[in-house]
Amino acid sequence: SRTIRLAVVPGDGIGQEVVAEGLKVLGAVLPADVKLESTEYDLGARRYHRTGETLPDGVLAELKGHDAILLGAIGDPSVPSGVLERGLLLKLRFAFDHHINLRPGRLFPGVKSPLAGTESDGASTTRRDIDFVVVREGTEGPYVGNGGTLRTGTPQEVATEVSLNTAYGIERVVRDAYRRAQARPRKKLTLVHKNNVLVHAGHLWTRIFAEVGREFPEVTTDYLHVDAATIFFVTQPERFDVIVTDNLFGDILTDLAAAVTGGIGLAASGNINPSGEFPSMFEPVHGSAPDIAGQGKADPTATVLSVAMLLDHLGFAAEAAKVEAAVAADLAERSGTRSTSQVGDALAARVSG
Amino acid sequence: SRTIRLAVVPGDGIGQEVVAEGLKVLGAVLPADVKLESTEYDLGARRYHRTGETLPDGVLAELKGHDAILLGAIGDPSVPSGVLERGLLLKLRFAFDHHINLRPGRLFPGVKSPLAGTESDGASTTRRDIDFVVVREGTEGPYVGNGGTLRTGTPQEVATEVSLNTAYGIERVVRDAYRRAQARPRKKLTLVHKNNVLVHAGHLWTRIFAEVGREFPEVTTDYLHVDAATIFFVTQPERFDVIVTDNLFGDILTDLAAAVTGGIGLAASGNINPSGEFPSMFEPVHGSAPDIAGQGKADPTATVLSVAMLLDHLGFAAEAAKVEAAVAADLAERSGTRSTSQVGDALAARVSG
Ligand SMILES: CC(C)[C@H](C(=O)O)[C@@H](O)C(=O)O
Ligand SMILES: CC(C)[C@H](C(=O)O)[C@@H](O)C(=O)O
Repeated sequence: SRTIRLAVVPGDGIGQEVVAEGLKVLGAVLPADVKLESTEYDLGARRYHRTGETLPDGVLAELKGHDAILLGAIGDPSVPSGVLERGLLLKLRFAFDHHINLRPGRLFPGVKSPLAGTESDGASTTRRDIDFVVVREGTEGPYVGNGGTLRTGTPQEVATEVSLNTAYGIERVVRDAYRRAQARPRKKLTLVHKNNVLVHAGHLWTRIFAEVGREFPEVTTDYLHVDAATIFFVTQPERFDVIVTDNLFGDILTDLAAAVTGGIGLAASGNINPSGEFPSMFEPVHGSAPDIAGQGKADPTATVLSVAMLLDHLGFAAEAAKVEAAVAADLAERSGTRSTSQVGDALAARVSG
Repeated sequence: SRTIRLAVVPGDGIGQEVVAEGLKVLGAVLPADVKLESTEYDLGARRYHRTGETLPDGVLAELKGHDAILLGAIGDPSVPSGVLERGLLLKLRFAFDHHINLRPGRLFPGVKSPLAGTESDGASTTRRDIDFVVVREGTEGPYVGNGGTLRTGTPQEVATEVSLNTAYGIERVVRDAYRRAQARPRKKLTLVHKNNVLVHAGHLWTRIFAEVGREFPEVTTDYLHVDAATIFFVTQPERFDVIVTDNLFGDILTDLAAAVTGGIGLAASGNINPSGEFPSMFEPVHGSAPDIAGQGKADPTATVLSVAMLLDHLGFAAEAAKVEAAVAADLAERSGTRSTSQVGDALAARVSG
């Protein structure tokens, strides 16, 4: 018998609601001999308003003792922009060295994409063959928080943001992406950057992409500038298999990917530390959506798919597949409006069936 | 009688072909008493291979003496990435202080968008009401070329890119965007940034956006993170009127905008120095497309629409409107495949009719 020590950070807004459904499905799918020990951590806007804390050192140390973290959503309009993002969400990603930020882009059968159909008769059918994964670097680039202001608040203010990129940091995420590409049927890897303008970082990415590629002769590679990549995301998303890119470009591309694969309500993500030295963290790509919070309207599917990634990461591959299959079946049969918990109930029923 | 001194930089690949058509239409639309004095400058990949030069000081000085620049496209796979972009295209934008990089996103009637229709019956119809303009900052941000590498070429390499943002630079582009919003029927302005992560630059943009906004009480404003903005570009592009954003986000969003409004073959741009101290430069958003160069396949419409922006900038508003109307009429009636020069001929005929 095995125990999973799970830290749960519901966070703000709909984070609470969707995490409850994620846990419901997780409980339903786990084999009887696996014990789930989950501890909830109160972090986010409420705690910040109450105590001024975003992520106290003591909590960070406690979180470290877990096998994985399930996170709902962080952020609220009542907190100045950046405080919770930098002080909590990004702090977790950096402190736990989540350098692989994994974000699948898959159009499930039955899901409507905002893209028009590809059929030659021009009929509005849903494209069926979008299935890629973005491997976003999670600990470098413009996200490092390096930069500052001079003459702050005056008409002479200057503000800088420094993107830091290391061969070490790029190599590990690029190698991870090659491995994933190698393991997929199409074996295709696309590097996305802007190496014709951001020449210092861009050339480093390009060099390492080529060097590591020599270890993977079976993987077909190409390169796209980030601007051109956005065009292909809407005109030809089927062309992508595995994409590797930096932290900021990955942030942008994965929201766009979510949009073309049926919306942010279905987009899952894993912030992964492959060494296992620190707990990996799984979260839906969407935000806290304060406008619909507390109304039972949020789609918990993105969180449930993040739970599938969590299961896979912890070695429960069969259970992960079961959750994904349940989501696929549920999406294929969807009709009418269901509440957050109705979707969770339906998925939990499917995985325990 | 008036003379327009136009510098023409056809550049690489299809740049040559599309610029020829742009000039054809320009010649056809100008009133008889306006003299067009155009001088062609050989810049781009061929010159670089021949002489090693990208933009010699002497040429820069000559270009400065013109009323405007018409540019085709820059870039060729035979030249290392970044050499021509930084050494020629961006050098022009920075040297001539093109701080307003204007990029309309308009879906012309008859043009197919890759987005599915909005009709409630789900039929595949083209959305008709996309009409926005992106005001992209052109002289700051991550495009400044500030940064470098340490231990270059080794496994210990570190590369930086520094985004520089000044209150001065932001204020002038933000004010320009407010003025444009104020002059449009919907009077709506959206700031796009990533102020929850890039807090130094983001908060500066946000502060100045709010401050300048007080001068424009009639303009409705909102803010979107760049990742969320990409979602709206594919799910609800009609929501946008004027968008103001930084150099890099503007680069990414305007390619996406081109994609959803019928493709990069129709996307025009102006690199504008509103003071008139330096010549403004007009260019299609697309690249040199070496794969189809020299085959007469390129659509010159983006260049022709850039010529319309050039006319407008030089005070020929009626002629600009005539060119736009010609393009609209041509697009509405398009059928079959036409060569680059056939499209140019058709447009030239329309504006002289
Ligand atoms: C909330 C924000 C800091 C975060 C990011 O930019 O990474 C989010 O957009 C995401 O993609 O997970
Ligand atoms: C070619 C490149 C330097 C340029 C840019 O990044 O600005 C292009 O993508 C554009 O949008 O005009």
